[in-house]
Amino acid sequence: MKYVLPTLLIATAAMLAQDPQFTSDGQLQKPANYREWVFLSSGVGMTYGNATAQAEASPAFDNVFVEPSAYRAFLKAGKWPEKAMFVLEVRRSAAETKIGKSGRYQTQVIGVEAEVKDSKRFPGGGWGFFDVSNGPGKLLPQSAACYTCHSQNTAVENTFVQFYPTLLDVARAKGTLKPAFLAPEK
Amino acid sequence: MKYVLPTLLIATAAMLAQDPQFTSDGQLQKPANYREWVFLSSGVGMTYGNATAQAEASPAFDNVFVEPSAYRAFLKAGKWPEKAMFVLEVRRSAAETKIGKSGRYQTQVIGVEAEVKDSKRFPGGGWGFFDVSNGPGKLLPQSAACYTCHSQNTAVENTFVQFYPTLLDVARAKGTLKPAFLAPEK
Repeated sequence: MKYVLPTLLIATAAMLAQDPQFTSDGQLQKPANYREWVFLSSGVGMTYGNATAQAEASPAFDNVFVEPSAYRAFLKAGKWPEKAMFVLEVRRSAAETKIGKSGRYQTQVIGVEAEVKDSKRFPGGGWGFFDVSNGPGKLLPQSAACYTCHSQNTAVENTFVQFYPTLLDVARAKGTLKPAFLAPEK
Repeated sequence: MKYVLPTLLIATAAMLAQDPQFTSDGQLQKPANYREWVFLSSGVGMTYGNATAQAEASPAFDNVFVEPSAYRAFLKAGKWPEKAMFVLEVRRSAAETKIGKSGRYQTQVIGVEAEVKDSKRFPGGGWGFFDVSNGPGKLLPQSAACYTCHSQNTAVENTFVQFYPTLLDVARAKGTLKPAFLAPEK
């Protein structure tokens, strides 16, 4: 046992909840290991913040990752715990040519954004958005499009669970889909 | 310490290497938790095994996940350890319409395949492919297209690291890209 314990401690550090970390002036630190978080899904051409014409010629992929302890909490409850943190990674795409097919695959990162649930820190609605593409990022102002779009169009709380197929099943089972999402289109 | 230890043990179980599990007749068990493994990348329209015309109208996404201990080994060495295991999850796509954009997002699973590195179990080349879409899957025969395609077109060992941008950087730094991948096109 005594030989195993140090390894356990090191290994376990990565399993514990990883709360959002802020600089002294309130900027969100870019999570260094978000690529090892739980992948929720990716889309292509969802044109987050990109010009449409350019995006159609070379559509960007968006990968969404969630901090693992928040993921496990969602599996149990169908909703997010306080301090849940998400990363949206946007990557350019390239055409797959060498093996003679017509697909597109992901290349370099062109943006990294984060969303955090924290009712005390973000009293306006409980959620904050940050651009952490280049390291720590300031809270985006309430006038930013992400607040309105997430508030109006998301399936569960402030998150696009309708695009995360494994979580959509959980939310259906737990009855946590928003009434506005379930309502028939007008 | 004594109160923390049971939690550590439970939490750590998920961090230890998860070796491939086989049935008594040699079928690979479908890894139950592959969606919590490390996501390598996704592509769209890469048409793994699908008819081209149908695929272009509704291109499939492919998500690739790797067992976390193998991922950590690759970060250190730029190559895969024995018993490294990968899952390729293929999902249908749907058009994003509600928020008025032109993107595509992932919907239901249409196939789950696995690749395993094991020099003893697969003496022909050290790698085996399995269709685990419906649970345990038999080793696919050497005549299956995956063996030839992976052998001839992959960037590192038998894996398409050229489509996994974070690992491509590691392989470049470690000098583990295959000569055939680095050679100029004829």
